[in-house]
Amino acid sequence: MPKETIGFIGVGVMGGAMAGHLIDSGYSLNVYNRTREKSDGLVERGAVWRDSPGEVAAHSDIVITIVGYPKDVEEVYLGHGGIIERAAKGALLIDMTTSSPALAVRISERARERGAGACDAPVTGGDKGAREATLAILAGGEEVDFKRALPVFQAMGKKITHFGPAGCGQTAKLANQIIIAGTMLGVCEGLAFAKKLGIDPEKLLDCASSGSAGSWSLANYGPRILNGDFAPGFFIKHFVKDMKLARESAEGSGISLEGLRAALAQYEKAAEEGGGENGTQYLYKLYDK
Amino acid sequence: MPKETIGFIGVGVMGGAMAGHLIDSGYSLNVYNRTREKSDGLVERGAVWRDSPGEVAAHSDIVITIVGYPKDVEEVYLGHGGIIERAAKGALLIDMTTSSPALAVRISERARERGAGACDAPVTGGDKGAREATLAILAGGEEVDFKRALPVFQAMGKKITHFGPAGCGQTAKLANQIIIAGTMLGVCEGLAFAKKLGIDPEKLLDCASSGSAGSWSLANYGPRILNGDFAPGFFIKHFVKDMKLARESAEGSGISLEGLRAALAQYEKAAEEGGGENGTQYLYKLYDK
Repeated sequence: MPKETIGFIGVGVMGGAMAGHLIDSGYSLNVYNRTREKSDGLVERGAVWRDSPGEVAAHSDIVITIVGYPKDVEEVYLGHGGIIERAAKGALLIDMTTSSPALAVRISERARERGAGACDAPVTGGDKGAREATLAILAGGEEVDFKRALPVFQAMGKKITHFGPAGCGQTAKLANQIIIAGTMLGVCEGLAFAKKLGIDPEKLLDCASSGSAGSWSLANYGPRILNGDFAPGFFIKHFVKDMKLARESAEGSGISLEGLRAALAQYEKAAEEGGGENGTQYLYKLYDK
Repeated sequence: MPKETIGFIGVGVMGGAMAGHLIDSGYSLNVYNRTREKSDGLVERGAVWRDSPGEVAAHSDIVITIVGYPKDVEEVYLGHGGIIERAAKGALLIDMTTSSPALAVRISERARERGAGACDAPVTGGDKGAREATLAILAGGEEVDFKRALPVFQAMGKKITHFGPAGCGQTAKLANQIIIAGTMLGVCEGLAFAKKLGIDPEKLLDCASSGSAGSWSLANYGPRILNGDFAPGFFIKHFVKDMKLARESAEGSGISLEGLRAALAQYEKAAEEGGGENGTQYLYKLYDK
């Protein structure tokens, strides 16, 4: 059975690497990206450029999107001439952007009306995970759609979890981001406190990392913070988006998350002070003044 | 050279285990505890009961304290007939309670006036670390005092760090607790969000633990939370004390820690709702209603 043709929309740092793994796995690709040049490498490797998301959808069995913000997701799927309008009956639509669970449900419903399936499947693991095909993929959607998507996911990621029907992948990703939000607050405040109070933050980092204060964030961002390296692994502006989505979902379900609220307020302040293009570890600078 | 005689004040869950390791290492011990019965096991093993902290100090070369709150530390050291009054010239006084950096400085100054040395040396690693002699010890004090204390520390702990002069051990411990405070907020809020929004928190825990949301807190408390096990490893009431000390130190140094503020407010709420005798993972219950 020949492999399904995949349309890939959004081939930036994340999507570009992920689409590359699909080519490596023998899939035929149609690609579209807002900035066309970013698709050049994929086109050289055999991917076919299409002039719009709708055009990608019209020529693909499976459509994958990984774009910036929920409004971009909404536009490429539900906009005039977009994916939903142009997708074939029997197509499978997979949004891998971190986006709104409610929007994932809407897209899924609209897809079903058109005889297509849909999954929401945001990822964690960053650019490194995308490059090395070690992403964690947090999926929502009907069982049948998840099963069809699985070999495609396996070409791009390692830990693949099906959390339930449409929207559940997004909800899981937001829960993950809520955990990170609190952790990053603690990491940045603890290191800044140490420095401000005059103890050696390197010693504190070493000591704290190996004990009950340890975390992935501390181990990965702690050394960068102390080296003054605030380059993005994960952009503050994207983290702020994720936390806003999490807040929106929490409020909609009547759960009040004070830690998330504090983290979002601090990250918004960091973004306002011009830090949005920095990595999430830049939060430290808010305290180190 | 015969080993120095050690006085040990405060032989509860932590101190009792730590003092036991000193007996194992061949030290002679004088002990005092507010509740006398808790010293029975140590006395059976050869420790000598003394009727007050001052009496312990009068018969010991090195005095170790690990008591409840800074006010207890203040009383045993600076109170009438207390350690400072009764300690011999040349004694070494080591407070291992998590307490105030400013108080550690005061005790150190008063000790020096009496011709004694002092270290502050709070620990991390909990009852398990105390039992297994794998505690991390975060020390402050003069180099000469730290060096004298080192073999004693090595009998009780594993990772021993000298952070600087008097108070620096306490400051390092508080920085460590600030990191944990944010992390625990994230862990409890993320898991509660997942449950509230209808995804399987077990799946989320599994997925988040292995990625960038991972932490010691998530790995250790996550499973207990989902099993409804809120028994104390580390008591909420003690964590609240630590966070208040951290806030006090932060405010005194003009650094504003919004994450710490949020964590403290939430933990105080959990304590008010009767959770103070529970473990720190009980914070989850504040959200899971």
